[in-house]
Amino acid sequence: MRRVSLIEATCPIARALDEIGDWWTLLIVRDAFGGKTRFGEFQKSLGLAKNILTERLKTLVANGVLEKRPASDGGARSEYHLTEKGRQLRVILFALRQWGEDHLFEDGEEMMVARDRGNLPIARLRLMNSVGDTLAPEDIVTAKGRKRKQTAHASTRTTLA
Amino acid sequence: MRRVSLIEATCPIARALDEIGDWWTLLIVRDAFGGKTRFGEFQKSLGLAKNILTERLKTLVANGVLEKRPASDGGARSEYHLTEKGRQLRVILFALRQWGEDHLFEDGEEMMVARDRGNLPIARLRLMNSVGDTLAPEDIVTAKGRKRKQTAHASTRTTLA
Repeated sequence: MRRVSLIEATCPIARALDEIGDWWTLLIVRDAFGGKTRFGEFQKSLGLAKNILTERLKTLVANGVLEKRPASDGGARSEYHLTEKGRQLRVILFALRQWGEDHLFEDGEEMMVARDRGNLPIARLRLMNSVGDTLAPEDIVTAKGRKRKQTAHASTRTTLA
Repeated sequence: MRRVSLIEATCPIARALDEIGDWWTLLIVRDAFGGKTRFGEFQKSLGLAKNILTERLKTLVANGVLEKRPASDGGARSEYHLTEKGRQLRVILFALRQWGEDHLFEDGEEMMVARDRGNLPIARLRLMNSVGDTLAPEDIVTAKGRKRKQTAHASTRTTLA
């Protein structure tokens, strides 16, 4: 259990974990990417207690990761769809996926595998600087700065103080 | 709280979340990348109850993400260092960082900013297939497969069943 909220932290990692950092939240998002939209579909997939799923879905909607829509078939049950903010969690899921593939499975073990629609494998995510040099952990430093105003397709979104 | 373990799941995301999917674990790892090695340093940085920190460090060592070493100054207190498995969590931390930067800060707000040692910004992580095409979420599918034997620098580590 958390003892403090991290939402006031200046570290984007801390703030992201405050918002999406528990198992169920990212698994609900994973299932939403897989096309699931209904409470019952998430519940069946995750085997999660209904009260916990209700609470997690409510938080995801409140945080703008999912949006609740009327049923597309005109029925009584609402649907949950990823927002653009939610869709951008895809990279986090793939970073988790690749690390999991590398370290948590034995050779030959059964595993869900991701491909593109043309059946090509997904490239490994790599940390690079803005000119394309691959970076090792010790090549990276952090310092106090400020968030820079976002512009479309900006490759640099931050500035040092 | 989790009701079921995900470690038997065939989904690498589920398995990764089972191992590292709580706030404190990834924040300890973040601090280890930042050069912290001592119990007291993690405790001061995270403001975390000692019993919880003790338990999380023990789990990280048991899972091979951190290793415990005698103090480098010959003192009584052990140090915790990232293993290679732990170092490879860097990409997950950066995926969290970039999403946090984009969605959880206001323009101009104070924020910890990452750069490389030459002061160049870090490139945005992008999902691409093995020939370099950028992929949207709907371009990606998952299917049952198996983990392929890892070879050095292999770009493809998985195979469909």
